Amino acid sequence: MIHPVPPGTRDVLPDEMRELRDLSTRLHAVFEGAGYGEVWTPAIEYEDVLRRGDESAAGAGFRLFDDRGHVLALRSDPTIPIARLVANRYAGVPASLRLCYFAHAYRSVERGSGQAREFLQGGIELIGIAGPPGDAEVIALVLGALSEAGLSRHRVGLGDGMLYRSLLAAADVPEDERRPLLESLWRRDLVRLEAQVDRLGLSPAARELLVTVPALRGGPEVLDRVDGSLAGAVENLRECHELLRERRVDDRVIFDLGLLRELSYYTGTIFEVYDPAVAFALGGGGRYDDLLGRFGEARPACGAGLDVQRVHLAQLAEESQASGGTA
Amino acid sequence: MIHPVPPGTRDVLPDEMRELRDLSTRLHAVFEGAGYGEVWTPAIEYEDVLRRGDESAAGAGFRLFDDRGHVLALRSDPTIPIARLVANRYAGVPASLRLCYFAHAYRSVERGSGQAREFLQGGIELIGIAGPPGDAEVIALVLGALSEAGLSRHRVGLGDGMLYRSLLAAADVPEDERRPLLESLWRRDLVRLEAQVDRLGLSPAARELLVTVPALRGGPEVLDRVDGSLAGAVENLRECHELLRERRVDDRVIFDLGLLRELSYYTGTIFEVYDPAVAFALGGGGRYDDLLGRFGEARPACGAGLDVQRVHLAQLAEESQASGGTA
Repeated sequence: MIHPVPPGTRDVLPDEMRELRDLSTRLHAVFEGAGYGEVWTPAIEYEDVLRRGDESAAGAGFRLFDDRGHVLALRSDPTIPIARLVANRYAGVPASLRLCYFAHAYRSVERGSGQAREFLQGGIELIGIAGPPGDAEVIALVLGALSEAGLSRHRVGLGDGMLYRSLLAAADVPEDERRPLLESLWRRDLVRLEAQVDRLGLSPAARELLVTVPALRGGPEVLDRVDGSLAGAVENLRECHELLRERRVDDRVIFDLGLLRELSYYTGTIFEVYDPAVAFALGGGGRYDDLLGRFGEARPACGAGLDVQRVHLAQLAEESQASGGTA
Repeated sequence: MIHPVPPGTRDVLPDEMRELRDLSTRLHAVFEGAGYGEVWTPAIEYEDVLRRGDESAAGAGFRLFDDRGHVLALRSDPTIPIARLVANRYAGVPASLRLCYFAHAYRSVERGSGQAREFLQGGIELIGIAGPPGDAEVIALVLGALSEAGLSRHRVGLGDGMLYRSLLAAADVPEDERRPLLESLWRRDLVRLEAQVDRLGLSPAARELLVTVPALRGGPEVLDRVDGSLAGAVENLRECHELLRERRVDDRVIFDLGLLRELSYYTGTIFEVYDPAVAFALGGGGRYDDLLGRFGEARPACGAGLDVQRVHLAQLAEESQASGGTA
């Protein structure tokens, strides 16, 4: 007789758990060593508080009720609760803040092909440092943590969360027609995106930009192929790349001008981390300069989260491939 | 502007979090060193699966719904999900199993004066070893883990979860009148208990037992004051005490014949761990020989859980008192 667990959740037995704990401990040591202090936020929060951070993030979560009938939600993203924590506990602290977390997050809806509904996230939030210097610190730290965890072939895809939105605005695409295009882009469905762009009846030049820019992917040379309304984003990405070069991790960077992250609070640089040994992103993050202001004092911020179980699978796959096995 | 978190939950900031992580790591090392392999079970489970383990435990939990309308519940107790895991993943494995866990549990209703609704539990489950040898291994390991965590004055209150139920049965108290008495005992309200007993109209001898036995608390000599229907439980407790003496932790034992634990699945020895520096129990556990059989193969089992944040408060209070400060 097997007693089922909910789809997207699973038991972890001792051999795997030992490796997951070891991995978390290593990632934590790297974050803590770089000055990122660990925080814990409750797994359950008032839904209207989470909604303040991001309407869609709250919708993706499991909802429950307390004994007074308040609507609560399970943590579906670590960053919004940390923005709330910063507003509550660090108001009026002008210095930059470096925080990290290790906590499970929960989504009631599928998320990518893995469809995990309970996943352990480990990540960092850098608050109070604007622009490329903040972005580069976060990205370099995540890449370093993955190296420390034993990965050797990991890469970071680097883009800008406002880039396609800027193109849509520059092409005068009406507000209410933008969302389906962003949805296709987020799903990496460039065929559908092209069909949608074609239906907009734009000028050939505007159509060309909306179709070709999201396909630009590669070394720094891809940045030379865009300009105009994207000059600000491109300048940011160049500067970030230069700072990553100084930190000697620029060889891991792949520019990806079609990158879009699920959560809508990103305001600038965004990134995802990959390992060629596995087919899925290990994590990602980006700049969210508007989020803290929704809870209190406006402060620039950038963060990154890793899916610890996915990083573990990448470790195993790299080891297996290195030893000549099949993944 | 302060954004509230639900009552009974709280944020943990880096200084405290560093100490909590250190404490968890130490406890984990003791458990793992004794052969207890860590497992993880999902924080959300089907409520009807949890109910199979204990009706009241499921009722104490937060309930939520998945996208197919199934009723889910947040983990409110670590032991029932582990019993499910053992049935699913270790069926037909005859050897004894030693498992440990570190996970948050959630209760929608108040639990004692602290009223925490989210609490980090660290504990162990010893499956397949019956009677006092199993009980003594679990109790000695928990006491050792607390010593390793830096406590020096902790004690274990030792009783039997069936003892008062046996007295009620021996006195022919009708089934439906037993629950309010057990409730008073669990709340340690001996005044109310005495009034309830008086209303039962029992013989003076039966009344005397039901009123005096729950107040028996102290060294091994309290065991000499009971017998008759309690002979089995008393013999178990004596044997457990002897085994704890061999493990050189018997000086920490206080027999407590009025002890009753909240969860109804205990079938024999039960215990709670205290530290004189703080007013609340740090954790506890007991023998639950009937629980695994509700999910699959019947196997004897004993477990213990610690509230990691309460252990941390006891650490701080002991340090403060040792240095002459006030707690």
